[in-house]
Amino acid sequence: MLKGFAVPRSPRGTAALTPPPPWHYAADVLAVEFWSDPEVSATMLPQEVELDARSNGRSVAIFADCQFTANGDEYLDPARYQSREFLVLLDATWRGSQIAWCPYAYTDNDAAIMMGWVQGYPRKLGVVHQTRTFAAQSAASPPLGRNGRLAGCVSAHGQRLADARLTLREEVDRLDGLFDRPVVTRRYFPRLCAGAHDKPVVDELVLCIMDNVMITNGWIGSAELIFPEVHGEDLDMLGPIKVGRGYRFAFSFSVSCNEILANLAV
Amino acid sequence: MLKGFAVPRSPRGTAALTPPPPWHYAADVLAVEFWSDPEVSATMLPQEVELDARSNGRSVAIFADCQFTANGDEYLDPARYQSREFLVLLDATWRGSQIAWCPYAYTDNDAAIMMGWVQGYPRKLGVVHQTRTFAAQSAASPPLGRNGRLAGCVSAHGQRLADARLTLREEVDRLDGLFDRPVVTRRYFPRLCAGAHDKPVVDELVLCIMDNVMITNGWIGSAELIFPEVHGEDLDMLGPIKVGRGYRFAFSFSVSCNEILANLAV
Amino acid sequence: MLKGFAVPRSPRGTAALTPPPPWHYAADVLAVEFWSDPEVSATMLPQEVELDARSNGRSVAIFADCQFTANGDEYLDPARYQSREFLVLLDATWRGSQIAWCPYAYTDNDAAIMMGWVQGYPRKLGVVHQTRTFAAQSAASPPLGRNGRLAGCVSAHGQRLADARLTLREEVDRLDGLFDRPVVTRRYFPRLCAGAHDKPVVDELVLCIMDNVMITNGWIGSAELIFPEVHGEDLDMLGPIKVGRGYRFAFSFSVSCNEILANLAV
Amino acid sequence: MLKGFAVPRSPRGTAALTPPPPWHYAADVLAVEFWSDPEVSATMLPQEVELDARSNGRSVAIFADCQFTANGDEYLDPARYQSREFLVLLDATWRGSQIAWCPYAYTDNDAAIMMGWVQGYPRKLGVVHQTRTFAAQSAASPPLGRNGRLAGCVSAHGQRLADARLTLREEVDRLDGLFDRPVVTRRYFPRLCAGAHDKPVVDELVLCIMDNVMITNGWIGSAELIFPEVHGEDLDMLGPIKVGRGYRFAFSFSVSCNEILANLAV
Repeated sequence: MLKGFAVPRSPRGTAALTPPPPWHYAADVLAVEFWSDPEVSATMLPQEVELDARSNGRSVAIFADCQFTANGDEYLDPARYQSREFLVLLDATWRGSQIAWCPYAYTDNDAAIMMGWVQGYPRKLGVVHQTRTFAAQSAASPPLGRNGRLAGCVSAHGQRLADARLTLREEVDRLDGLFDRPVVTRRYFPRLCAGAHDKPVVDELVLCIMDNVMITNGWIGSAELIFPEVHGEDLDMLGPIKVGRGYRFAFSFSVSCNEILANLAV
Repeated sequence: MLKGFAVPRSPRGTAALTPPPPWHYAADVLAVEFWSDPEVSATMLPQEVELDARSNGRSVAIFADCQFTANGDEYLDPARYQSREFLVLLDATWRGSQIAWCPYAYTDNDAAIMMGWVQGYPRKLGVVHQTRTFAAQSAASPPLGRNGRLAGCVSAHGQRLADARLTLREEVDRLDGLFDRPVVTRRYFPRLCAGAHDKPVVDELVLCIMDNVMITNGWIGSAELIFPEVHGEDLDMLGPIKVGRGYRFAFSFSVSCNEILANLAV
Repeated sequence: MLKGFAVPRSPRGTAALTPPPPWHYAADVLAVEFWSDPEVSATMLPQEVELDARSNGRSVAIFADCQFTANGDEYLDPARYQSREFLVLLDATWRGSQIAWCPYAYTDNDAAIMMGWVQGYPRKLGVVHQTRTFAAQSAASPPLGRNGRLAGCVSAHGQRLADARLTLREEVDRLDGLFDRPVVTRRYFPRLCAGAHDKPVVDELVLCIMDNVMITNGWIGSAELIFPEVHGEDLDMLGPIKVGRGYRFAFSFSVSCNEILANLAV
Repeated sequence: MLKGFAVPRSPRGTAALTPPPPWHYAADVLAVEFWSDPEVSATMLPQEVELDARSNGRSVAIFADCQFTANGDEYLDPARYQSREFLVLLDATWRGSQIAWCPYAYTDNDAAIMMGWVQGYPRKLGVVHQTRTFAAQSAASPPLGRNGRLAGCVSAHGQRLADARLTLREEVDRLDGLFDRPVVTRRYFPRLCAGAHDKPVVDELVLCIMDNVMITNGWIGSAELIFPEVHGEDLDMLGPIKVGRGYRFAFSFSVSCNEILANLAV
């Protein structure tokens, strides 16, 4: 009897890339809002999803230092259950409702790739870093306070995809413009059968459901963001024409299920 | 209009984790045949697949240094299109036919993870190395000749999973016992919806079809192989109770489609 | 005119592996005290350094998540100026004074290798992880509080060298038994000239001087620690015969110079 | 009694970053000759070394897939004793003799960093790839023959430093313009003592002595080469103003000693 939520399924079930949900996440997050050419942003969307005309091409770039666990104390295996993540969330609509759409996502961890794909996040391997703050005061640790400066970056296969810088201005209770829309993704799993390379076996619009959401230690400030042009990626098409607020906060949430909004395969 | 064989689908189609098939592979391979406890090996198999009683628990452990390409000269982007692979192929049967079953597979490349999952190989991230031989004679380069010694190893998340050593004995035209059975895998993609964590959206037995297979520079010899016990993996359950021949050869093949043998999800 | 504190020296000086001191460090640290066989520990010491007879083979294993900077805002380049470190400090004496001796050290960063060697820490590449805590409460984030559990691990070249676990018991103002001795290291740089392979060009006992030391958020608790036996390393010789307290704290300090205690080369 | 050619010295001597020489290397090499602005190239040179006026700013960029060993069968530990290297050799003179000068070098291996520094190569960590050829014919494996195309690349800390492409034209017995000058390097090891940050403890011009040199399977062809501008590196200052021949060959040599040409520290 093979066990395991994901491949590889095995007799003891311990080899699976990820334990079964619920999955709990805690993270330090650095985020930057930016605007791309709306005509270009619109080309990033699948059928049934439209650019949010009111947002005029607005997106958020998110860098996250994560730790995750299921119900088996996985956080005590930090070599497997920490990850660094980068993703973009683009202001869009689905049947008139405001949503956040994820066109690109990167992580440095294979469990996170699997957990991402199962949720519809199109994760690829990337190397992500963000400046940290520490409880011990030091010139090496920017204060989580006014004028504190932090940076984030992501690379894939040795090419830098994004560089961000923040200067903190104000502690805030609410992060307006961030995570105030549900995230919608596309679960897409291709078929290899002859003649069916463009007929995916799974092609669904998915509503990501986050439970136990907690945001704390929120700061906003000014920001810089660039997406260098690189071979083999399309992120640079979203290259910012305007950069808005920067955000820095701690974040936690849980995931145990999602909701299929539409089957695009039929 | 989004393009791309795999996620992330994008306007130019260049961001996709893998270009569309055909996929062409070339590799140097080091392989070791071994026998596990047949009662344990049998627990590695899904429904419809049985242990090959004639083989008595025989498997092959394979280390491969790979380069791959589709039709876009991807081999000229070696940072993305080289990988190092480790997998186990276990002698099994499906409806009476002899097959090779893949319970575990590791790679160091995200395109290879995607290409693997699409084919049913349950790939996880691993770091794989094998001793190379070079055209320039050196104490650092074992001869591809009698008494040449080579080693292979694989680790995941900082833990060594397998160590192999070969001593070459004889050049051969045919690699008896290797790749003489079709490979059958299980495409398995979980569902995250509430109450459906054990009802995968895809669960298929798949026949892997390899075209243009070429094996050359084949050598066989004696071998050693160990699978250390590690936390979070199940490979060690297949720990060899007997080790057989070692193989070293160059290998190439193409993949453009596979065949669904059975839908296990119904 | 070539510039730079370290190689490679270059016209702009920006290529150097590390900017000139002062170097400022901030870190989260997980540490475990342990006792090895004193007869074995004694064999880890160079001439002029002796085991501290009062300590009976006591050492501390330290896992650190670090960020560092010089005077050029290097902390805003987190891909280069973050590191994860593991080291052992062994209770010893030099000319009767109590010191901490560093027999082994690992890092994942090349600037840190250079900065380590210049200070006498014998750093090699390793992959180090420790459980983190986050400001956002989550099952994924152990509380920095009573019964909070954390783990640390280090691997090199795909082999696990050390695994540690802590359970926090008590918040403390002082970390007795930790960093209460000056660290002494050996700067050793070999010579490649014929006949001089055992006559290093640099062989000095060095007193590491730490300025601006700050320790905060200190917790002590119970701990587990193991050093698996691995090929190509000697850390396992210090395998704990007894494990003592665990420590978790935030730490910062600066380094701008050290002091040569003795020239062992003459 | 501590043993080991390099740090960390240990009771068994097995922990040292590198075993004692002789060191034997075997490699596949892809190289490209190029010309930089001679006025810029001249600024890469230390005192006593001058640009070779006859070469007009000529250099060679070298990508190498290496395996190395000492006298202990280290090549059977491929996780530790393989590396991928990138370096530049610049046509220079020392006291009128033609030499090749190494301003920049990168590797992915810590033993190679140590072995490099001991020889005077200013190695930093980098991720290097080159297209491979395999004995099994495949669209994934360019032929080592006329019109075969190969690429090389190097990145550091997630930024691409160099991209090269070759098209093979002609098999050759001699690689004119490559390795026909002795390599001279600078062993430079800084001092951390107060007031002595610019007074290195070691600062020597070194003649690298290679024994048992073998070059085989040599091909020359046309090439492309770029050095993108990146933060924290100076390689791009050598950005090619003209690109010459490409080379592809197998290479082996041994190193057991070098020769100090001059002490720059006095």
